[in-house]
Amino acid sequence: MSEPGGPAYCPYFHRTIELIGRRWTGAALLAMSSGCSSYSEIRDAIPGISDRLLSERLKELETEDIITRTVSGRSTTYELTERGEALGPILGAVSVYAERWAAPAP
Amino acid sequence: MSEPGGPAYCPYFHRTIELIGRRWTGAALLAMSSGCSSYSEIRDAIPGISDRLLSERLKELETEDIITRTVSGRSTTYELTERGEALGPILGAVSVYAERWAAPAP
Repeated sequence: MSEPGGPAYCPYFHRTIELIGRRWTGAALLAMSSGCSSYSEIRDAIPGISDRLLSERLKELETEDIITRTVSGRSTTYELTERGEALGPILGAVSVYAERWAAPAP
Repeated sequence: MSEPGGPAYCPYFHRTIELIGRRWTGAALLAMSSGCSSYSEIRDAIPGISDRLLSERLKELETEDIITRTVSGRSTTYELTERGEALGPILGAVSVYAERWAAPAP
């Protein structure tokens, strides 16, 4: 854990934090956690993201077994897997921190 | 928050998750959270990090008011600020996730 006396290094911690913090990945995960599931919903939720980067990030998350991708006719939808849903507490903790420490004071 | 119906996008969430997920930053924060405070303790805790990158990341965290840097004679020590300590629940949630989902099954 991240407490005094806890391990100073953990390769799985390292891998996880850099996976979710990769450019646009966190934003895509937040959009999916909040209910966006089609490609266009996710893209429209994230200001400034390009199709190229969003596709790349979604592909990475699929490879990591964090999301699944379903193509049906012309629509592509994404769903968090169990491994993806399990990121919820991290995303929640980031939201709480961001509101208190990253947003301008009210 | 990261629950269905929560915001699909938040610029402060976005900024926070990409700050902590930047290459080596999460590892440096975990090392400091676990009690490493001198430059050499932090460096020695993180396999494979270069002096150049560690210095760069520590400088960024100092600029973000997440750590303070104290130089005394030949030793440089770093301490988490209040804003840095507040990252604890995020690091804790990442550790829990990593142990369950990123580490190989026992």
